[in-house]
Amino acid sequence: MKYLFRNDYSFGAHPKVLTALAETSMEGNTGYGEDGYCKRCADLIRGLCNCPQADVQFLIGGTQTNFTAIAAFLRPWEGVIAADSSHINGHEVGAVEATGHKILPVPTGPDGKITPEQIAPILERHKDPHLVKPRLVEIADATESGMVYTKAELTALSQFCREHDLLLFLDGARLGSALASPASDLTLPDLAELTDAFYIGGTKNGALMGEALVIANPALQPDFFRIKKRLGAVLAKGWLLGVQFEALLQDGLYFEMARHANAMAARLQTGLKALGWTLMVDSPTNQIFPVIPNTRKSALDQLCAYEDWCPGPTPDTTVIRFVTCFATTAEDVDGFLAAAAKF
Amino acid sequence: MKYLFRNDYSFGAHPKVLTALAETSMEGNTGYGEDGYCKRCADLIRGLCNCPQADVQFLIGGTQTNFTAIAAFLRPWEGVIAADSSHINGHEVGAVEATGHKILPVPTGPDGKITPEQIAPILERHKDPHLVKPRLVEIADATESGMVYTKAELTALSQFCREHDLLLFLDGARLGSALASPASDLTLPDLAELTDAFYIGGTKNGALMGEALVIANPALQPDFFRIKKRLGAVLAKGWLLGVQFEALLQDGLYFEMARHANAMAARLQTGLKALGWTLMVDSPTNQIFPVIPNTRKSALDQLCAYEDWCPGPTPDTTVIRFVTCFATTAEDVDGFLAAAAKF
Amino acid sequence: MKYLFRNDYSFGAHPKVLTALAETSMEGNTGYGEDGYCKRCADLIRGLCNCPQADVQFLIGGTQTNFTAIAAFLRPWEGVIAADSSHINGHEVGAVEATGHKILPVPTGPDGKITPEQIAPILERHKDPHLVKPRLVEIADATESGMVYTKAELTALSQFCREHDLLLFLDGARLGSALASPASDLTLPDLAELTDAFYIGGTKNGALMGEALVIANPALQPDFFRIKKRLGAVLAKGWLLGVQFEALLQDGLYFEMARHANAMAARLQTGLKALGWTLMVDSPTNQIFPVIPNTRKSALDQLCAYEDWCPGPTPDTTVIRFVTCFATTAEDVDGFLAAAAKF
Amino acid sequence: MKYLFRNDYSFGAHPKVLTALAETSMEGNTGYGEDGYCKRCADLIRGLCNCPQADVQFLIGGTQTNFTAIAAFLRPWEGVIAADSSHINGHEVGAVEATGHKILPVPTGPDGKITPEQIAPILERHKDPHLVKPRLVEIADATESGMVYTKAELTALSQFCREHDLLLFLDGARLGSALASPASDLTLPDLAELTDAFYIGGTKNGALMGEALVIANPALQPDFFRIKKRLGAVLAKGWLLGVQFEALLQDGLYFEMARHANAMAARLQTGLKALGWTLMVDSPTNQIFPVIPNTRKSALDQLCAYEDWCPGPTPDTTVIRFVTCFATTAEDVDGFLAAAAKF
Repeated sequence: MKYLFRNDYSFGAHPKVLTALAETSMEGNTGYGEDGYCKRCADLIRGLCNCPQADVQFLIGGTQTNFTAIAAFLRPWEGVIAADSSHINGHEVGAVEATGHKILPVPTGPDGKITPEQIAPILERHKDPHLVKPRLVEIADATESGMVYTKAELTALSQFCREHDLLLFLDGARLGSALASPASDLTLPDLAELTDAFYIGGTKNGALMGEALVIANPALQPDFFRIKKRLGAVLAKGWLLGVQFEALLQDGLYFEMARHANAMAARLQTGLKALGWTLMVDSPTNQIFPVIPNTRKSALDQLCAYEDWCPGPTPDTTVIRFVTCFATTAEDVDGFLAAAAKF
Repeated sequence: MKYLFRNDYSFGAHPKVLTALAETSMEGNTGYGEDGYCKRCADLIRGLCNCPQADVQFLIGGTQTNFTAIAAFLRPWEGVIAADSSHINGHEVGAVEATGHKILPVPTGPDGKITPEQIAPILERHKDPHLVKPRLVEIADATESGMVYTKAELTALSQFCREHDLLLFLDGARLGSALASPASDLTLPDLAELTDAFYIGGTKNGALMGEALVIANPALQPDFFRIKKRLGAVLAKGWLLGVQFEALLQDGLYFEMARHANAMAARLQTGLKALGWTLMVDSPTNQIFPVIPNTRKSALDQLCAYEDWCPGPTPDTTVIRFVTCFATTAEDVDGFLAAAAKF
Repeated sequence: MKYLFRNDYSFGAHPKVLTALAETSMEGNTGYGEDGYCKRCADLIRGLCNCPQADVQFLIGGTQTNFTAIAAFLRPWEGVIAADSSHINGHEVGAVEATGHKILPVPTGPDGKITPEQIAPILERHKDPHLVKPRLVEIADATESGMVYTKAELTALSQFCREHDLLLFLDGARLGSALASPASDLTLPDLAELTDAFYIGGTKNGALMGEALVIANPALQPDFFRIKKRLGAVLAKGWLLGVQFEALLQDGLYFEMARHANAMAARLQTGLKALGWTLMVDSPTNQIFPVIPNTRKSALDQLCAYEDWCPGPTPDTTVIRFVTCFATTAEDVDGFLAAAAKF
Repeated sequence: MKYLFRNDYSFGAHPKVLTALAETSMEGNTGYGEDGYCKRCADLIRGLCNCPQADVQFLIGGTQTNFTAIAAFLRPWEGVIAADSSHINGHEVGAVEATGHKILPVPTGPDGKITPEQIAPILERHKDPHLVKPRLVEIADATESGMVYTKAELTALSQFCREHDLLLFLDGARLGSALASPASDLTLPDLAELTDAFYIGGTKNGALMGEALVIANPALQPDFFRIKKRLGAVLAKGWLLGVQFEALLQDGLYFEMARHANAMAARLQTGLKALGWTLMVDSPTNQIFPVIPNTRKSALDQLCAYEDWCPGPTPDTTVIRFVTCFATTAEDVDGFLAAAAKF
């Protein structure tokens, strides 16, 4: 395979991250996240979020972070409002339901975003105590289709949630790409202020693994370690997460990589448009979604790694997904575009 | 702290493991364990276990492997027979119960081992359908107190389990140390033959993280990926586990490190005995359990990292735990013994 | 309130059922369903179903029967295909999710029925192991909107399920009304042959409480008592269920009551049509669904008990539900119709 | 079988209860407990408990009430301290674990009671966040072996729980017999004051079925209906429970029956002692526990219904259980004693 656009978790870690791991390997650190790296990095994140009261918890992966947070935050009879296209609803083998919580899907358009207007009728219907009680709204930034929330949109959601006793939880598996996008006017402090909890995804932006969950709402913080351990989300060598996130966040590497990935995706998207390709959405992040004739797929399979996303708008087309990351180069993009120009 | 005997997960990874991770970092690999490393390493493990029909699954940590395997193998009303001192019963925040399964604890002595004679009365009592149905026996090798099963003991357990329609699952978080122990006559092929499933622990023997679960019983294999994903145990960059286990297992590094750790523990244990210290058990593996007067604890705290284990045999004593690993040196042991000689 | 059309569980039990309970009250019976009534009644039901291999289990209520059966039949990663309008999806406070299973809703029309054609794309999409594995199709007869399956429809579903390794489970909370409907050509033996399990609802057809679950598929029968007990569905005085179902089924009282309820609903529906009322569906069972102008609701509230069902086809209308049962009389219906004619 | 001492749920309901059910059967009542009987009866119980702020919830059976209350009151990582001999630990097929909660068993003597002194070391050990957090103490009155708590004992437990942030929940499946016992100085108002929640068992004292859960602690009351429904514990014809409890409690029938059952058990126990029989405990309630030579069991089997309880103090003996209830007569007892005198 010549060009690797399959996803943003196809490469190990940024060299600086690997170096930090190697340099600290033989120090001897306390396990389970009770080490100095995790403590310092939690402080660093609290500072970046301008949120001194936040609890920062390091977990290993995105699915795990989603269900651990939801299980920690909710009572058994409470449900989760989320986009029908959300990762928790369609790509995690029912991990949220495994913790006993029903997802109440919001039908969304191709941008994957949800609005107060879409939530309101769900709340109305669920006043009936024979239905689960909606208690948490889960959104992702970037969404599954690579789109981002604006500050105005997130503020509206946040206000609505607070008025209706709903928690707001933001899946940040691709938060770097979202915040680094020219389409976003959001910052980490905004997220800490507007959500109850969110996470800074490491896996999809240059770490071997790891998600940093920021629990801004103090009411949700007690006993988090216990549920994290119970659900398999405590890494024995917990400092590996602290070391990585410190390497990512202390000098801006995290957002530098995200901007790079976005730039590569934009270059690819612009190039494809110039070649006359259609796109499902006009993505401002590191995922782009070309609509291709099915007849072109076998040629594409020879040329690059990508994923089928969903059926296209007409029966003879498919929406596919290209994803860029810190490891994608301009040469990769240009080379692919040159080759694609030939079919 | 001068001497680090707190546990075997205080150091990152063996340098060869780190090198393998660094060298493969920028290759571009398929995610979720569908890469070549995982596939090759699964073959390697099947070969080492002489068990061509085994399914080999890589997971991230021990607690996670325990509850994922148990949840995959059992029906909701089925219970787990395990030592009362087992890790699943007392150190995992109820992770097995979180999947809905009751643990039926077997009172064990200081060796932490269980026998058919101890299981039989539990089976008898649980014929009553108002109790859970015992269906799986969970043991660990080495046990929580560092002891090992002999082939005769494991064979007896295995036969008993098969006669009574019980699955046998072996927690191998410290399998390296167990199999490398002079007290053990067991081999990987023995485990594959005598158990339904067991795992080869990486976290506690030189990997950053990772456990290789060997599901020898074909009836337990279907759909394992789905439950692994659902419970947060699929690493997005799954090849990191394949790469590490390949580095550990292809040239014998895994057992070399385990023998080293055992040798360091034996050196320490012998030295302490020579100094007149008492030990809870005579451990043949990398964990040793001195009984110390409580008055000596503050001096010890200055000298080394260790863990309190349990109350000692008399009220003024405590059982503590020292653990060695690949990173422990003879100089560490001898230096500590010299210092300990002075109190 | 003059006319009680709110539901079919507003009255205690048919007098013959009460008499049977009173007559047997002081006999002294073994608990937990191990009595002679339950055994004899299970035989009676096996005979009525022409299904000697069936396991018959008595449970207390419908929600309970739904989630107990589903939890007994499925592995954790397996999901349930059901109508989006089904009782399990929208009226049971996430009881199925409480047992860990995701419901995969099929968008259905006003009849609430599902077809193989609707299931096929769900199967296709869920071949991806990052999604739950669809394993059971849940349908109800009568459906939530009072419609019934024909033998041809159920046969098609059954064949499709068997071809695709899907279990077929039928919620029979209103099975009496369904089978007694002129629109149905199904029989109890048909259900035992075409489904893996179904239940004969007692609560909504003349019993104080109780559902008789018929597990026709032998593979689903083992250990059912244990999961029933575990989920709170074993009645201590279990013979109360056997006694009631015997009274209902041994002389045809069950279907006699169902036919009566259907006849009363038909009389009501016909009368309303004659008065110019609109109906959401043309119901052949004991539930009917008038569409009424919202302005008429306060008058109706004075006259009778009913339930709001869903928003009507236009913003100023509401679909309401009237339900008849064994206790509904022709005088009730005619009296209501006479009164309704006046507004 | 001549004499029925097997348990206190072998007979239907007291005739007054049956009459009340029959008389109200055709009234037409709102379902799910939203009827006037449940409301009035809740008021009646609040009055009897002298606890105006209590929430009173009617459930169907004891196992169900235990796990529903525990699931409603606890967060996922919280555990239940209970006697190892408790019903929830050994007779409910892991129903508490099915809701995800670990039971931390307290080894108790033959009286089945637990004390603050036994709880303290469990709390100490579970300060470690790698273990579940003990949060609720579950006791039963009467205990599984028929013994009762004194007011002093319950006060001590209650104070200890409040000092240690533990909830106190009392399984009252046999509360009538306990409170009516001459050995008890407790009252309903005492229970409402000293526990966070307890229930008044109907099933084992003259009702067809039903347990009245009194949630005295306001913090545990919100949303209880939703979890009750979700776990299958809402009876569709909910008024059946209100009607029965009203019949039991409004004129003292409940305690009258309990006193009668206790008197019959005392008569039996005294008679057996006079015949030289040994008893495991000196029971002040309606359950008594003779120790009998195994050689005498076949003769006993011909004479009466009873249950094997546990192995006796010597290998050739068994502890058995006799239970009396509202339906037991002095003639039964005397007849049995006369017959027993002959072997």
